[in-house]
Amino acid sequence: LDFPSVSARSTDEYLENAKQFVKNWQDDELITPCIAPHALYTCGSDTLKKAKTLAEILNVPLHIHLSETQWEVAEVMARHHKRPVEYLADLGFLDESVLAAHCIWLHDSEIELLAKHAVGVSHCMESNMKLASGFAPVVSMLNAGVKVSFGTDGAASNNDLSIMSEMSTTAKVHKALSNNPTALDARTAILMATRWGAEALGLGASIGSIEQGKCADLVVMNLDKPHLTPIYNIYSHLVYAALPSDVETVMVNGKIVINDRELLTADQGEILEKARRWREKIQPHDA
Amino acid sequence: LDFPSVSARSTDEYLENAKQFVKNWQDDELITPCIAPHALYTCGSDTLKKAKTLAEILNVPLHIHLSETQWEVAEVMARHHKRPVEYLADLGFLDESVLAAHCIWLHDSEIELLAKHAVGVSHCMESNMKLASGFAPVVSMLNAGVKVSFGTDGAASNNDLSIMSEMSTTAKVHKALSNNPTALDARTAILMATRWGAEALGLGASIGSIEQGKCADLVVMNLDKPHLTPIYNIYSHLVYAALPSDVETVMVNGKIVINDRELLTADQGEILEKARRWREKIQPHDA
Repeated sequence: LDFPSVSARSTDEYLENAKQFVKNWQDDELITPCIAPHALYTCGSDTLKKAKTLAEILNVPLHIHLSETQWEVAEVMARHHKRPVEYLADLGFLDESVLAAHCIWLHDSEIELLAKHAVGVSHCMESNMKLASGFAPVVSMLNAGVKVSFGTDGAASNNDLSIMSEMSTTAKVHKALSNNPTALDARTAILMATRWGAEALGLGASIGSIEQGKCADLVVMNLDKPHLTPIYNIYSHLVYAALPSDVETVMVNGKIVINDRELLTADQGEILEKARRWREKIQPHDA
Repeated sequence: LDFPSVSARSTDEYLENAKQFVKNWQDDELITPCIAPHALYTCGSDTLKKAKTLAEILNVPLHIHLSETQWEVAEVMARHHKRPVEYLADLGFLDESVLAAHCIWLHDSEIELLAKHAVGVSHCMESNMKLASGFAPVVSMLNAGVKVSFGTDGAASNNDLSIMSEMSTTAKVHKALSNNPTALDARTAILMATRWGAEALGLGASIGSIEQGKCADLVVMNLDKPHLTPIYNIYSHLVYAALPSDVETVMVNGKIVINDRELLTADQGEILEKARRWREKIQPHDA
């Protein structure tokens, strides 16, 4: 950010904090730290260039919020006389290390630029609908070869944080927006949630598909349930019929973390009690 | 229908069958039969008038599919030189006994006509998105005073048949379409799914809200779950966070039909086995 906050007093202090954060987590088995200049309306070109250089030195991804609102696009146009993606391309910011969130208000020429520079896109359909930000041109981006994946955004604008719900809603909304019932078919939605998602994050070599040499990140779902009977097509079933509650076991990097719907790595009751206490602080029951 | 099918050979035979169907079920505690001329592209004005008269004689609701596709509107315009709702209004078909499904391609003047004649609308957002039919102007209809409720349509175009999913998706999509994050708030979605839904069906006097003298149609949900903790606003929680799997007990007209997720009124295993056998007939596993 180009202004002080509780996190830091200056741009250089933000960057120093980010550098320290990356160094602390870079060797972690499960966490991939990145450098994340917030957005074009909160970071000037100097900050963006410094962030880019730092990410290159540390060899980590870059993350930025991009073209989420019409206001933001107008702001960038007023400041730089270029559309947001054109501005970032001219700055030398865009390459395959960049993961851009939202990407709603794009011209076709900007979609071409995202594809040309192999930028990964994490769009957040349900959040962006709830905030009335708009609909990202997912089908046009996919057609242009952009790696588009699902993001949930935060709970403030997307209560359930469910990638399963994102798959289902995105597949359906884009059929209607495209006026084409075959657009964004269920298999494409599954690929966006798995292999393409991993590739958009720059993690395609280690996660995203079940292959020898990749991490064992597996979800076991029980499909023997009334709402899942009978099964005709497994992709369609996973996207349009299955529920998060059908997940019984979750394995992360070869280690079972949820077994038969029981969390094994932390005390669930304690976490829920903490959540309830925070709720009381934020919005007391008698308010 | 104006053409023969496996159900009947002529319009009069369809109407006679419908009359018999209504007489067979009219005294049922849970079933409200209605007369349902299919749509404007399959029923001519004579059929629509006869159906209307029969419904009046039998004192039952009328159900019709209306303005689901752009093709259908063009077809009606070519045949009658009027838009579908105008045509039905001029025919004397519209009043508070009519429940119209879909209602996607409406002009503002047609929305006014639906409101003026107190027509109930059952829109089917997820089905109509999956079929790429379009988005019904739900917010405009609600603003004009039309009683809009949720429909799921059939499993062929909406796999999960979930009103909970319809509530969540409809509330979110219409915020984005309206460019207004306060459009179709969670409480409105709950009203559409309960009281307004009952009113659209013409059953407002007996169901749709928990009141003395109305049927006890109740659903008990368990909200003490990780994905539902903590709770700030119950309407928002039910629309945006709760899942069908959170329903534990269902009471229909005072009688418990599902208790602690167990179906009490039929043999669930037998039903599922039948569904699997039908699947083998429709699409054999080795196909």
